[in-house]
Amino acid sequence: MSQLLKQRVRYAPYLKKLRTPEECVELFKNNQYIGWSGFTAVGAPKVVPDAVAQHVEDNNLQGKLQFNLFVGASAGKEESRWATNNMIKLRSPHQVGRPIAAGINDGSIKFFDKHLSMFAQDLTYGFYTREKENDLLDISIIEATAITESGAIVPGPAVGATPEMVSVSDKIIIEVNTATPSFEGLHDIDMPINPPHRPPYPYMTVDQKCGVHAVPVDPERVIAIVESTTKDSVPPNTPSDAMSRAIAANLVEFFRNEVKAGRMPENLHPLQSGIGNVANAIIEGLADANFKHLNVWTEVLQDSFLDLFENGSLDYATSTSVRLTEAGFERFFNNWDEFSKKLCLRSQVVSNSPEIIRRLGVIAMNTPVEVDIYAHANSTNVQGSKMLHGLGGSGDFLRNAKVSIMHTPAARPSKTDPTGISCVVPFVSHIDHTEHDLDVLVTDHGLADLRGLCPRERSRVIIKNIAHPDYVDQLLDYVNRAEHYANKTKSMHEPHILADAFKMHLNLAKNGTMKLSSWDAPI
Amino acid sequence: MSQLLKQRVRYAPYLKKLRTPEECVELFKNNQYIGWSGFTAVGAPKVVPDAVAQHVEDNNLQGKLQFNLFVGASAGKEESRWATNNMIKLRSPHQVGRPIAAGINDGSIKFFDKHLSMFAQDLTYGFYTREKENDLLDISIIEATAITESGAIVPGPAVGATPEMVSVSDKIIIEVNTATPSFEGLHDIDMPINPPHRPPYPYMTVDQKCGVHAVPVDPERVIAIVESTTKDSVPPNTPSDAMSRAIAANLVEFFRNEVKAGRMPENLHPLQSGIGNVANAIIEGLADANFKHLNVWTEVLQDSFLDLFENGSLDYATSTSVRLTEAGFERFFNNWDEFSKKLCLRSQVVSNSPEIIRRLGVIAMNTPVEVDIYAHANSTNVQGSKMLHGLGGSGDFLRNAKVSIMHTPAARPSKTDPTGISCVVPFVSHIDHTEHDLDVLVTDHGLADLRGLCPRERSRVIIKNIAHPDYVDQLLDYVNRAEHYANKTKSMHEPHILADAFKMHLNLAKNGTMKLSSWDAPI
Repeated sequence: MSQLLKQRVRYAPYLKKLRTPEECVELFKNNQYIGWSGFTAVGAPKVVPDAVAQHVEDNNLQGKLQFNLFVGASAGKEESRWATNNMIKLRSPHQVGRPIAAGINDGSIKFFDKHLSMFAQDLTYGFYTREKENDLLDISIIEATAITESGAIVPGPAVGATPEMVSVSDKIIIEVNTATPSFEGLHDIDMPINPPHRPPYPYMTVDQKCGVHAVPVDPERVIAIVESTTKDSVPPNTPSDAMSRAIAANLVEFFRNEVKAGRMPENLHPLQSGIGNVANAIIEGLADANFKHLNVWTEVLQDSFLDLFENGSLDYATSTSVRLTEAGFERFFNNWDEFSKKLCLRSQVVSNSPEIIRRLGVIAMNTPVEVDIYAHANSTNVQGSKMLHGLGGSGDFLRNAKVSIMHTPAARPSKTDPTGISCVVPFVSHIDHTEHDLDVLVTDHGLADLRGLCPRERSRVIIKNIAHPDYVDQLLDYVNRAEHYANKTKSMHEPHILADAFKMHLNLAKNGTMKLSSWDAPI
Repeated sequence: MSQLLKQRVRYAPYLKKLRTPEECVELFKNNQYIGWSGFTAVGAPKVVPDAVAQHVEDNNLQGKLQFNLFVGASAGKEESRWATNNMIKLRSPHQVGRPIAAGINDGSIKFFDKHLSMFAQDLTYGFYTREKENDLLDISIIEATAITESGAIVPGPAVGATPEMVSVSDKIIIEVNTATPSFEGLHDIDMPINPPHRPPYPYMTVDQKCGVHAVPVDPERVIAIVESTTKDSVPPNTPSDAMSRAIAANLVEFFRNEVKAGRMPENLHPLQSGIGNVANAIIEGLADANFKHLNVWTEVLQDSFLDLFENGSLDYATSTSVRLTEAGFERFFNNWDEFSKKLCLRSQVVSNSPEIIRRLGVIAMNTPVEVDIYAHANSTNVQGSKMLHGLGGSGDFLRNAKVSIMHTPAARPSKTDPTGISCVVPFVSHIDHTEHDLDVLVTDHGLADLRGLCPRERSRVIIKNIAHPDYVDQLLDYVNRAEHYANKTKSMHEPHILADAFKMHLNLAKNGTMKLSSWDAPI
């Protein structure tokens, strides 16, 4: 037992339950329901999952030792290793990594997708374990960075669904990560209370704290304490580029106008933004545009937020995960006193709570796969059928935000055409967000403010303001024809030609581009 | 001035503002933004809208005196008269009545559709009036059944969006309805408070009251008090029939099993149900099944709830509207002491609040136009393009409920085929609710419990359990073929053949039935 571990585990009875990762392997049986801590590739368990994977590899148990696996959102490379070894039978609610997406798309992994705020709650209702004799998770593996005197778990850089998982788990394995500093003091955690007894979440500002600082567990259920010295590791962030900066510039101008019109305060409302280069460019753009005293209410923070803290633009940020690079974590811990005063990690049912998002008037910004001319968005399935990562919290935020924004390049390259994929299509091939939810769409070519517009107005504004020039005429042609026919059948609310609605997608599949020779030509 | 009016208007200064409906006509100018009280055809203004319509008819002003009209949800026949006279330029967020749907679908009325909880809030943000010089509604016409000593409005059978409308209206006309008894004491109203100052809604039980009992207004903005003696008039309710009773029986069995499994308490959770014969059959079915101490948190109550109160099954109900027939209202007022203790009307942002619906664990039940094999639902647009009534509160409830249920006949008749329209299709022609929102689908043929199932499992369960027998093989054929092709392209998450996805809709349009001779045959 390392000295570090002894220091971190302040509840003595746990020290009798020490196991090596390898000693945990026997606990895992085929078809169990397993919960992992973690959210967006940080804070997930590492050494126990790796030991189980090693056992499978050593004994050729691929496809024979399989699990129903739930992770708050995505885990790290250990999850990929499980997928590679065909150890995942069922998975929810969000995943990242080539092997797991491959398993979902070749049909070997059953995956279901749920709003992140709803997923954790439904888990506690027993909705996902209703075929089992007891409706509990068999084992949850939770990464901790410390254990309190009462045996409660101090998470690392992600809270995620840990509170819900431990509350409905038969057995709990705690991986105490001693390679990273303790995150104690950074969390504010609401434990699940289910209807009819659930009280309001009291939060009226992003920095309000009313929860507990560690996740209480029933020590009886803790069957193993395992030391881990594997650090989180996330790939470097994609830097902003001309495209993402053009999107950001359009958005910053929109925000300026909203402030001028009195529809937003000068420091805006709390921001939600995703991961990736567009999100980074927006953050940079807001700082450059001299917005001050910004606040953030979001699900995941990345390195760029550290800049925003340091240059004085950002007053406070809260999320369920800080997904930093190794350099980012170093910077974070070197300035712990400063950053930890301005940051708080909550459970994902709270960070993604419709209640709080609506109350605070959050500004939500997310990237879709594609949007359509009437403002429906596809966030999950390429060509309607092929899963990317999952819905994540996009629905939690876009449905409830004061201003719901989706940003995307106007076009993407296909294999043979640099603008072969239009991100504006007549009818999205999968719908995750409806026309009733989206206020603003923005691309590198412009911004479409859709608030208060009827569908026929929306289609014109979207095509003219944000579609890639290569597709403007083609899309206008679709709309004009759709309106022509809809006028005959008195169906002018949201005119579509169902026979042509997916023609651009079909052409892409067959000919490698969404550019049609004509709407009349068969594909 | 009638004695009755004098009694009802307890704020003396208003009595100096008395006008006849005809004297109000001059206040209305072309292209104004107008708010009406009312929700689901009750509580809307009547005599002033009728006077303006009369003015248009008398002076041939059809299409020349037009308004941008907002009503909490639908109004009554006065709205139809405005539509008939081409007086509505823009309308949101929900409507009922042949003339207004006709106007939307022939393209003469611009209509946009929004979650009812979101609509009222966005109105106060100025989102729908952002093209105006002042971002206010020009006039709101609000029906009252009394006026308090401070000039506050006591609504009638609907609160709807009245609190929001009066808070952002330049001028207010109050129609005091003296033909109906006063509803004073029945309301509990939260006035809008916008971010960043909005507090939590405190409600933890359906019967909790923390609001005000009348809508406060700035008396300076009240420009006319008008007496109305026109009663609300709604058509008789559709009685339950064999089809709706079959749906109800399937649902009651589901509820019994949920109670048995411990996922619901014996008195269930607060119910939300819609209007119509299926909703009625479910209410009857729950009473027959001996469920006791039920509670209701919904947006509209109809006559059948009076039975449930009287037979002792229902403890308390809250909504934003009591949409009763004339006989129902009579019954209601004859037992006022009894019913008024068990009933409370709130504003629509509260009755439809995601925050409260999720906290209470509401059971949501709504009827779609159609659902698809992966559990997306179309609630608004027939054949993708033609507007029915609008989204209403279905999204508010289905997104946030503990159990989200949609019920529909398995098939409906077309003009030439008694089962020509399958309510289960490969891909719904418009999506209002996504696979991420719906837990249970039920028809007269069975129930599909989709919680925790991946899309490929869902499609089988939906087709086998709830599709009409005439369509089971055809739908299975689609799925089998879709999986066959998806397997080749490694797109097995949610297999679709986009070229065939709308084929059943196209066949209906061309041949009057969704029954295909074969998936291969061109249409």
